[in-house]
Amino acid sequence: MPVAAALEWIDNHFDVLGSEVVDLAQAAGRVLAESLVAPADLPAYDRAAIDGLVLRADETAGASAYNPLLFRASAPGPILAPGGAAPIGAGDRLPEGADVVLPLEHVETRPASYDVIEAAAAGSGIEYRASQWARGEVLLTLGRPLISWEIGLLAAAGVSRVRVVRRPRIRCLRFTDRPPVSGAPSEGNESGTNGPLLRALVERDGGVVIDESTVERGREQVRDAFLSAPADLIITVGGTGSGADDHAAPALAEAGQLAAHGLALSPGETAGFGRLTSGVPAFLLPGTPTACLWAYELLAGRAVRRLSGRDPALPFATRQLETTAKIVSRIGTMEICPVRRRDEQHVTPIASFAAAGLGAVARADGFVIVDAGSEGFPKGTPVMVHLRDAAPFLAAPQAEETAP
Amino acid sequence: MPVAAALEWIDNHFDVLGSEVVDLAQAAGRVLAESLVAPADLPAYDRAAIDGLVLRADETAGASAYNPLLFRASAPGPILAPGGAAPIGAGDRLPEGADVVLPLEHVETRPASYDVIEAAAAGSGIEYRASQWARGEVLLTLGRPLISWEIGLLAAAGVSRVRVVRRPRIRCLRFTDRPPVSGAPSEGNESGTNGPLLRALVERDGGVVIDESTVERGREQVRDAFLSAPADLIITVGGTGSGADDHAAPALAEAGQLAAHGLALSPGETAGFGRLTSGVPAFLLPGTPTACLWAYELLAGRAVRRLSGRDPALPFATRQLETTAKIVSRIGTMEICPVRRRDEQHVTPIASFAAAGLGAVARADGFVIVDAGSEGFPKGTPVMVHLRDAAPFLAAPQAEETAP
Repeated sequence: MPVAAALEWIDNHFDVLGSEVVDLAQAAGRVLAESLVAPADLPAYDRAAIDGLVLRADETAGASAYNPLLFRASAPGPILAPGGAAPIGAGDRLPEGADVVLPLEHVETRPASYDVIEAAAAGSGIEYRASQWARGEVLLTLGRPLISWEIGLLAAAGVSRVRVVRRPRIRCLRFTDRPPVSGAPSEGNESGTNGPLLRALVERDGGVVIDESTVERGREQVRDAFLSAPADLIITVGGTGSGADDHAAPALAEAGQLAAHGLALSPGETAGFGRLTSGVPAFLLPGTPTACLWAYELLAGRAVRRLSGRDPALPFATRQLETTAKIVSRIGTMEICPVRRRDEQHVTPIASFAAAGLGAVARADGFVIVDAGSEGFPKGTPVMVHLRDAAPFLAAPQAEETAP
Repeated sequence: MPVAAALEWIDNHFDVLGSEVVDLAQAAGRVLAESLVAPADLPAYDRAAIDGLVLRADETAGASAYNPLLFRASAPGPILAPGGAAPIGAGDRLPEGADVVLPLEHVETRPASYDVIEAAAAGSGIEYRASQWARGEVLLTLGRPLISWEIGLLAAAGVSRVRVVRRPRIRCLRFTDRPPVSGAPSEGNESGTNGPLLRALVERDGGVVIDESTVERGREQVRDAFLSAPADLIITVGGTGSGADDHAAPALAEAGQLAAHGLALSPGETAGFGRLTSGVPAFLLPGTPTACLWAYELLAGRAVRRLSGRDPALPFATRQLETTAKIVSRIGTMEICPVRRRDEQHVTPIASFAAAGLGAVARADGFVIVDAGSEGFPKGTPVMVHLRDAAPFLAAPQAEETAP
């Protein structure tokens, strides 16, 4: 199956999950499941923006150093009498009748009065009701992944618990090691890679691994494992080949429906997916770590990201950079080609995931996706690079600027 | 104090903290405190890259459909006898003497022998020892924030616990509400904003808030609070003005040394910082939420990011975009100007943080930092925009591509 068709199947079968309410302190990084509408004006009333003296602006008309105008010191209170002035602190509610707050430096303080030596404009030193936002204004739109700023915004709006998309619950099944066909003992291999890798990938995409089981290799055992516990999505690892002890695909076909097995994707050729009779979707990832990684990133991860309400695209920043050498790809297969950054403008292809396995994961600064219809790119072509680690790359040019 | 001088003070006084060892499952997002050197070759031995038949390549010379060569079916074992062939599974150790693995499709299987109908090249179907990496190769360099891929990489290298930079422990102190000077009751305000905001910001930057205390307003009380418990950094919120009940700066001066109070930064003018006699640094953030936010982002956050071993720069992606209207800034002050994205190439300045408070946080898609030496930018100028929410912005152009 071409990757494009697999993506279409995923987009047709996965929609954002329902919601749950969490404490604001746990909400950073979660996706808002309802738009946040301001429940009240902010500020709720006209208030002083600065520490100072509150009075009536029209009464200062004509004031100057040569013509200081005297204001009677009024007791602080809800109403300011005509001709009076009262001290006020930043954030305090403006008394009725007052329409300006003067900084104390602009006033001469006397025992029971103040000399104002400058005419004041109404509104100066005042923060008017609803100047930050008005009741009913949409502050945050449904579907936003909440950043730290927005935790403050929600707190300011008086929100202490917030409705967010619930985390997709993922079951990860792997199979007991196959005895070596050759009889030679296998040790010092990377068989422990996929469990921690998948858990980290699922968490990055907003999901949670609720079960990490090892299942006995056998058609019935694998089929029963598919059906044994509820989940939003099942991911199996390994057993996707065509050998006698590769049970992932036939077991899924028995437990429901196998929508695809075998993808025009490298690494990841033997991946598959489908649904149980109950409707629970399942992705069958190859056991080779790099194939497991890429079948996750392109297929299973897209499903997890859709379920959790995130952008379904690959979660990497992209940048157009020039390749310093030819990038070669087989026509008919989407190939993921690792590249190393050479400088701000250039990347160099490195030994493929097929040739270097996880070594390519260690050495790559990013990757280029070559579509099935393309044979690659000649030296000197601008290519779209997905950056493995966007932040330092993007931040680098800043070092030359004065801004922090 | 100019912001540039404050940044210099921070860069001189904050270095990465020591390390701790954590389980691999908890290591995503943490910063590696030692370079990871491959403890062994991967693979540890030459092994089959595919399921197939293992044999000696030179013995297939001359084989063709017209001249099938017969290989004796050997028992699987550590040594392959001359003239023999044995089945092998992907990942199995290559028997001694063998140097090629043929896919079974290229072979005719007979009861006690195989007919090979194609000459094979030595090395085909084999993954050689150390082809992924060699023992002693540096796989990950000290200082990397670990992404999910690297969790898999560490697992493949046999690492189950990893040495990472320990999280900076931050104490956040705020002060009891000041009674309103005017006597009018204050309610419906945003006084609950800063605690949740700071906690989310500190966690984003790799720190952990170990104490969130409310301290009685009073010079002695604040000074004693500074000294009451250990921390890597203290952040106070509020009480940074010049009023009689603003005790943050004088209390820090009594508890140690006040390095700065008052910054050429808007929002954030009244911020300050210094160190206790014990050496513990302290940042004094203003209580107005937007001033608290910006004094954190530029000053305290930079310290937290340095302590936790991260990039000290602001953790936002930047992009050069054109402003559709004049951006105005006071000369002598670094101003943070909120902007809204208009399209892929343009931003429009919106009401400032000073005018719209948290409303600007709700409405901005990013911000422009105008240096103290600049009065702003005329309409049509390319400006460096820090993007509040880099991912969707960066991902947007992808919608038009075929690659996922």
